[in-house]
Amino acid sequence: MKRIAIDMDDVMADTTVKIIQYINKRVQGNFTYENLLNATNEQKKHFYELYLANNDFLWDEGFFEDIPVKPDAVEVIQALMEKYEVFIVSAATEFPNSMKEKLNWMKKHFPFIGWQHIVFCGHKHMILADYLIDDHEKNLKTFTGTPLLFTAPHNLHLNEYERVNSWLEVKMRLLS
Amino acid sequence: MKRIAIDMDDVMADTTVKIIQYINKRVQGNFTYENLLNATNEQKKHFYELYLANNDFLWDEGFFEDIPVKPDAVEVIQALMEKYEVFIVSAATEFPNSMKEKLNWMKKHFPFIGWQHIVFCGHKHMILADYLIDDHEKNLKTFTGTPLLFTAPHNLHLNEYERVNSWLEVKMRLLS
Repeated sequence: MKRIAIDMDDVMADTTVKIIQYINKRVQGNFTYENLLNATNEQKKHFYELYLANNDFLWDEGFFEDIPVKPDAVEVIQALMEKYEVFIVSAATEFPNSMKEKLNWMKKHFPFIGWQHIVFCGHKHMILADYLIDDHEKNLKTFTGTPLLFTAPHNLHLNEYERVNSWLEVKMRLLS
Repeated sequence: MKRIAIDMDDVMADTTVKIIQYINKRVQGNFTYENLLNATNEQKKHFYELYLANNDFLWDEGFFEDIPVKPDAVEVIQALMEKYEVFIVSAATEFPNSMKEKLNWMKKHFPFIGWQHIVFCGHKHMILADYLIDDHEKNLKTFTGTPLLFTAPHNLHLNEYERVNSWLEVKMRLLS
């Protein structure tokens, strides 16, 4: 049975959507996820600079508890589990509060995935799997299996990876 | 640079020593770590049955925060890091409170190992490394690199693995 490693933030969870809400509040901005997807490089750079200067909320208690689930993620991951061994692999050890919250989030939205198949780490280059679905180049570039880049506003400039734009595209790629 | 994955409980941390204290309190017993190492199979079976029936404290807040460090673990791991890439890999996702506590424990005793190199998981068979130092057969038997069995009372019956009895033996095996 082939193994798929799946990232959480901005792959299973709409983390950037929640981050935008926090940044808008913090800087009285009016960014939206859609705008960010279609923004110029200059506009995106501006947003991510604001984000890096104001992202202390990532360390706050509760931030990772109630992030919206990406469309179709639940149904497609459940279907993947019939054909693949699925691991959830989240770079979470930087945020000590996040791990318990991420376990709660998994239990709420993906109760069919047990703690045995959830991994919290920093670097991901010691993950052994056939596929890695992730939105960050730093994780995909050292991966020893087949990397799949899940589209997010911060990775639109990348051309070196096979891209999946949605969970329905993951389904087409891995289940048809 | 070769990569070593190192387990926490009963490898870096004297977890069984703390567990024995809790079980003794719970059942008014007088087990000691030394006795358990030298116990007959029947006596060990008795202890581990008591443990399985009374181990709810593993889920309590605080249990993993103040476990003693194994002798020589700090010095040897620090020395290993000059020659190897070291990852700490702990099967911790079963215990939602444990992960923040284990990060605190690491920061206190192993401040030279950052969150980037700490992994909390359930199954360990998706860990890619050259060596795995672990006390549990279930983790070693599926490992794709060289497994090293760290001696603990519950694994004395195993003969299929290369064994290390202490951190000084790890040093001899991997640094001489």
